[in-house]
Amino acid sequence: MRYFIDLEFDGTAYSGWQIQPHSPSVQQTLEEALHLFLRENISVTGAGRTDAGVHASQMIAHFDLETPQDCGWMTGKLNGILPPDIAVHSIVPVIPTAHARFDAKARTYKYYVTLRKSAFERGYSWFLPNEPDFGLMNQAARILLVTVDFTSFSKLHTDTKTNDCHVTEAEWSELPDSRWVFTITADRFLRNMVRAIVGTLMEVGRHKLTVDEFARIIESRDRCSAGDSAPAQGLFLHKIVYPDNLFEL
Amino acid sequence: MRYFIDLEFDGTAYSGWQIQPHSPSVQQTLEEALHLFLRENISVTGAGRTDAGVHASQMIAHFDLETPQDCGWMTGKLNGILPPDIAVHSIVPVIPTAHARFDAKARTYKYYVTLRKSAFERGYSWFLPNEPDFGLMNQAARILLVTVDFTSFSKLHTDTKTNDCHVTEAEWSELPDSRWVFTITADRFLRNMVRAIVGTLMEVGRHKLTVDEFARIIESRDRCSAGDSAPAQGLFLHKIVYPDNLFEL
Repeated sequence: MRYFIDLEFDGTAYSGWQIQPHSPSVQQTLEEALHLFLRENISVTGAGRTDAGVHASQMIAHFDLETPQDCGWMTGKLNGILPPDIAVHSIVPVIPTAHARFDAKARTYKYYVTLRKSAFERGYSWFLPNEPDFGLMNQAARILLVTVDFTSFSKLHTDTKTNDCHVTEAEWSELPDSRWVFTITADRFLRNMVRAIVGTLMEVGRHKLTVDEFARIIESRDRCSAGDSAPAQGLFLHKIVYPDNLFEL
Repeated sequence: MRYFIDLEFDGTAYSGWQIQPHSPSVQQTLEEALHLFLRENISVTGAGRTDAGVHASQMIAHFDLETPQDCGWMTGKLNGILPPDIAVHSIVPVIPTAHARFDAKARTYKYYVTLRKSAFERGYSWFLPNEPDFGLMNQAARILLVTVDFTSFSKLHTDTKTNDCHVTEAEWSELPDSRWVFTITADRFLRNMVRAIVGTLMEVGRHKLTVDEFARIIESRDRCSAGDSAPAQGLFLHKIVYPDNLFEL
């Protein structure tokens, strides 16, 4: 029997989603918690990896059980065992071929910035003492909607076969209390892609790059020409969308 | 020259606002930061004390300077020197007799609860696995609006002359994402008062006390009959109101 876990985590204390030798990961913490009350060795497969220090308002992972169990009971058990910085929203049964990573149709990330020092947002946003030009950044962001090859915003030396992504949403919006958020949705994301995009858009907002130069960086397909990556703590994996038929048992 | 500092702090790492021997306080951290760039020994007087672990979205404190300084410059300097969990909103000049504590006309506290485990709210709310009856709690809270003597919700053995407070607002409201907030405004608060009120209202919400019994606890003027205090991390000092004439220089 296959299940999807829908969870959130504060990434501050973790080296990311993916299991790493010698450092705490969300995946390993989750597997150990499942093992503790189900008494089986359980592997969980996430919708994607997240970098060290990146948060998730929603992460989806699948796992299999020999004997079906009550989902509400498993959710309560897991929340009791997991540390306070990981919380399970729900567990639902899915069809046996459902795959948290390969079946995801779309993923949304949000990147938060604050324009004033905040005691409460410090672990969950990038503090910018000088306001960048969000209008220009949105002009540049619209270019992402017609871009296919995102090599310029990928990590060097990864083993992905293609760097093609289809971005359907990419926009900065203002929030209360001098905060802004960049929302980006795509069918897939390359490693480090959102933070590289935010970092490069920020150079546009600070008038270090023009919108045309931003377009040329994308065309160059050269990671070294893009800007520095934005800090991890502002980034949230926000939402993952799957086809409805996965849940039709 | 007298100034008001308007600041926020995450109380997690502090033993409270007030200077304590051998433990970190917000007041001392602020005084040391002012000393570092103004090169004078400066005492700051806060609008009131807060308990260990309690947060402030707004705290006001006054201090005096021999030589007037630019407020924007002082704000920037302070934010650079202060740790990330304390942020200054602004510094404004006030009349020489203005007093952060004695001149406060009203203070508002907010107490947050969450009905589901949250990775992000864990340090800033009280997690309630079972939903209490907020309707009953609001019936009981309305009694606070006609109460004068709050001895039942005060800390034992304090040296205040009177336990009279005038509460003008006391209500639970629902927020998005399974969160609720209790907002309480009064001319003054006794030590531990909000957390004792929230803890006792919770007993009403859990049907351990009736609304009539809640009223009798207040009439008894006996701290021992009230419920346990709600945990510190859900409480925020939210707003302090002063007469306009303090700012008319």
